[in-house]
Amino acid sequence: MAPAIRILGIDPGLRKTGWGVIVSEGSKLSFLACGCVESAGGLSLGERLRQLHEGIGKVICAYEPHEAAVEETFVNRDPQSALKLGQARGIALVVPSLAGLSVAEYAANLVKKTVVGVGHADKKQIQAMIRVLLPRAEATSADAADALAVAICHAQHRGMRALVAQMRAAG
Amino acid sequence: MAPAIRILGIDPGLRKTGWGVIVSEGSKLSFLACGCVESAGGLSLGERLRQLHEGIGKVICAYEPHEAAVEETFVNRDPQSALKLGQARGIALVVPSLAGLSVAEYAANLVKKTVVGVGHADKKQIQAMIRVLLPRAEATSADAADALAVAICHAQHRGMRALVAQMRAAG
Repeated sequence: MAPAIRILGIDPGLRKTGWGVIVSEGSKLSFLACGCVESAGGLSLGERLRQLHEGIGKVICAYEPHEAAVEETFVNRDPQSALKLGQARGIALVVPSLAGLSVAEYAANLVKKTVVGVGHADKKQIQAMIRVLLPRAEATSADAADALAVAICHAQHRGMRALVAQMRAAG
Repeated sequence: MAPAIRILGIDPGLRKTGWGVIVSEGSKLSFLACGCVESAGGLSLGERLRQLHEGIGKVICAYEPHEAAVEETFVNRDPQSALKLGQARGIALVVPSLAGLSVAEYAANLVKKTVVGVGHADKKQIQAMIRVLLPRAEATSADAADALAVAICHAQHRGMRALVAQMRAAG
């Protein structure tokens, strides 16, 4: 039997960073927890990023995931918004890495295609599919649903990633 | 006599993050240390950001700065580069904040104007002025010189910032 792997998915944002933890056991997926880490608008940027850092750190301490995955955000907005998102994304990537977890990145289209079946699904379609795939994760916000979607995407693709890495290592 | 304040300036970048620590005592500035924290190109983004996180953390442990300052990068490049820079910048802002330091941000033009006297100085002019203002900081890379320039800018403006904060608190 395949071992049970806990996967942390993160959907980064400066104001709200969604997170979700699932358990992947062979082809079976189950819901563990999800939520949002928020930063307070009135604080300095350094302090807001610290709130996200500490919040994601607490999630990792509480649910002890084995691996993490973050959506590879597609940015078509202005450079100033991209810089802002990048700052929150840096925190989402670094905190699991500091805890010794590997952090995979998946393109938004691949996440949607894996979870909904099409690459251009909207947020409501993702939330609906999360309710189907993880029935116990009923009352999820859009941010938490996106985070769970990234975690599901990693559960589906991590076997293939490991295989490719093994083949590369073997030369 | 004004107390001696150690200021950490950071010039963030994913490949190379420049840093510099100066001592500000009244109107006197002196050089303490500077250098670069680098991340290895072959690693995953999470691991590269972890290297920057740990590198900046070591600088803070070694020189125990009281305050930090980071350049407010002007981004006119494509959103994808801005996202990349933002990720490194998030680390530069969060590590001092995690250590309990206040982290000020200064526009690139203000940094140049404070150090060189004009807002559109190039990297060589900044390096030349750093050699004048901090004679002991001779052999500095461009990244470290930019970081020292942000620290000098904070030394010049922190009094005014504190005054404004006091007046705001007093209503």
